[in-house]
Amino acid sequence: MAPDIRYQRGLAQLEAVAGAQGIAVVNSLKDTAPDLGRYIVEFAYGDIFTRPSLDVKTRELATVAALTAMGTATPQLKVHMQAALRIGASQEEIIETVMQMIPYAGFPAALNAVTIARDVFSAK
Amino acid sequence: MAPDIRYQRGLAQLEAVAGAQGIAVVNSLKDTAPDLGRYIVEFAYGDIFTRPSLDVKTRELATVAALTAMGTATPQLKVHMQAALRIGASQEEIIETVMQMIPYAGFPAALNAVTIARDVFSAK
Amino acid sequence: MAPDIRYQRGLAQLEAVAGAQGIAVVNSLKDTAPDLGRYIVEFAYGDIFTRPSLDVKTRELATVAALTAMGTATPQLKVHMQAALRIGASQEEIIETVMQMIPYAGFPAALNAVTIARDVFSAK
Amino acid sequence: MAPDIRYQRGLAQLEAVAGAQGIAVVNSLKDTAPDLGRYIVEFAYGDIFTRPSLDVKTRELATVAALTAMGTATPQLKVHMQAALRIGASQEEIIETVMQMIPYAGFPAALNAVTIARDVFSAK
Amino acid sequence: MAPDIRYQRGLAQLEAVAGAQGIAVVNSLKDTAPDLGRYIVEFAYGDIFTRPSLDVKTRELATVAALTAMGTATPQLKVHMQAALRIGASQEEIIETVMQMIPYAGFPAALNAVTIARDVFSAK
Amino acid sequence: MAPDIRYQRGLAQLEAVAGAQGIAVVNSLKDTAPDLGRYIVEFAYGDIFTRPSLDVKTRELATVAALTAMGTATPQLKVHMQAALRIGASQEEIIETVMQMIPYAGFPAALNAVTIARDVFSAK
Repeated sequence: MAPDIRYQRGLAQLEAVAGAQGIAVVNSLKDTAPDLGRYIVEFAYGDIFTRPSLDVKTRELATVAALTAMGTATPQLKVHMQAALRIGASQEEIIETVMQMIPYAGFPAALNAVTIARDVFSAK
Repeated sequence: MAPDIRYQRGLAQLEAVAGAQGIAVVNSLKDTAPDLGRYIVEFAYGDIFTRPSLDVKTRELATVAALTAMGTATPQLKVHMQAALRIGASQEEIIETVMQMIPYAGFPAALNAVTIARDVFSAK
Repeated sequence: MAPDIRYQRGLAQLEAVAGAQGIAVVNSLKDTAPDLGRYIVEFAYGDIFTRPSLDVKTRELATVAALTAMGTATPQLKVHMQAALRIGASQEEIIETVMQMIPYAGFPAALNAVTIARDVFSAK
Repeated sequence: MAPDIRYQRGLAQLEAVAGAQGIAVVNSLKDTAPDLGRYIVEFAYGDIFTRPSLDVKTRELATVAALTAMGTATPQLKVHMQAALRIGASQEEIIETVMQMIPYAGFPAALNAVTIARDVFSAK
Repeated sequence: MAPDIRYQRGLAQLEAVAGAQGIAVVNSLKDTAPDLGRYIVEFAYGDIFTRPSLDVKTRELATVAALTAMGTATPQLKVHMQAALRIGASQEEIIETVMQMIPYAGFPAALNAVTIARDVFSAK
Repeated sequence: MAPDIRYQRGLAQLEAVAGAQGIAVVNSLKDTAPDLGRYIVEFAYGDIFTRPSLDVKTRELATVAALTAMGTATPQLKVHMQAALRIGASQEEIIETVMQMIPYAGFPAALNAVTIARDVFSAK
């Protein structure tokens, strides 16, 4: 499959999952690191997010879990909480995913994720 | 609810999710740090794992995702991959959860998780 | 011991250690994730902080050390520096705990912690 | 070699590499943690940065790589991107060093580093 | 460019950089997670490692720096130390890259990386 | 103060705190990275560990806390648990320091630290 097919498939997936805000992240990279935006579209969305065997909602909740636990990706956790809501996860499911991280990554990770969730939910 | 109710509920949940191996982890702590085992049962399993709004399989996959991304919890990632299989996740779903981590935590995190998955799957 | 005893014991400990600001953190969670606040009170303060064999000041300095080294918990490091002062640690002891982290976690971790300490000390 | 020789050598190296902004970081520590500033000068710049076998540009790019991957040192990543430019690395080389981190630390680490690079490049 | 071109380019790059051991890592994934091996070839080596503006040796040293600082990727740090030697970095340059990490990631990160370097150098 | 004074002071401190095992770590670096051993003696022990305002036992417990939370420094956590015992901390104090990390870094960090503690205590 040619790269522009990967790009087109990834762009469609990015738009479906992350909407205008996801496209905006990619566009914001055009001046400084355009290929970073292209790889996000081609690889993260075109290759990975479109894989079978796990539905998109579970993929987004797994991503919310990981970014909560890592604690180093605040802007990305916000984007993926917005995406999780967009593709049909409830606010409760997002909060529960964060709560599930307490025993594995500790309270500060969960507290900082809830602060982000509050912003995301109130902006809806 | 009294603590022994939390403990009993947690022990039942731990056994359902992690089986004899989960119980063995708690028992192995009895000589050096018995309260660590008690808190795992009461808090991680009695309080958190039994919460509503997210099914146990999604909780386990979210945990596999987070431990894969963190990269500092090899023995625990093994236990939770075993638990995920036990409560009905397929090998494919576990591998896909690991694959979903590549864009967020990088290839080394995914490679080390697949090494653990290979051990878990072959021991079945 | 019933959960409300754990909660009452934890609330008293939280207030003693972290004062009005600690209570404010828990209250701020009431709309989005009330159980997160409850677990902080019951488990972190009711179960862990009240354990014997290590005095509260050493517990706070150990927490300042760990949050400095982790580098992912800025708001919580601020709260625990305030708490350390409140329960009798000196500014010098807090700075020394941060200095002790240089060989283990590097200069950026220590620099970011000193930036927080400066805010905490000047707000006193 | 006496400590003031290490300090003088480190100060000269810090000024050569990080310029007035590097000196400002050290001076800003004088009220709260003066010895932290002194160790940065003596050890990080006086001992490490002046070592042979690796040129200063490669040292700065290795530092940009590591701080990008760690994700916990935003102010320091900014300082070292400025330093890399100052000692002769091009904007392209800095961006490529960040791009090289994608497979090892993931897209969020690279995205957050590009956000910092954009600030640094536009402030030039 | 079609994916098999990316794969062929990546495989050539992987073989040039990491030799038979790099190919062995990819082959070892064929039973459990074959697409993980394919993405390493296509994306990490085909897309990223072949980019212009930074030579392969600097890319490898930046990778050694990052994996040293992260501390969660022991097998991969070994592979990239071997690769760095293979593409012309000296043992001294590898050790200096590790030494450069002390101020940013601390002594334990450097100590653990030197332990790996000792194995790599003695196996030559 | 001349460097050899820093070295002598650091060596005495290292021996007092970490005993023969600490000296062995430094000696083991002589073939591959002798200056890493020298910096550990001069900087970590000569400069940092001998600072006033915080007693050595609190320094060791803060170090045990941080290494437990970081989860990337297993050999060093072992050395510092041995050192903590050597300079007068009890097994209970070490375990309590680990327990204090549960709310901040999660159960896996505490579990892996207790595994190390068990080895250290049984080797006494």
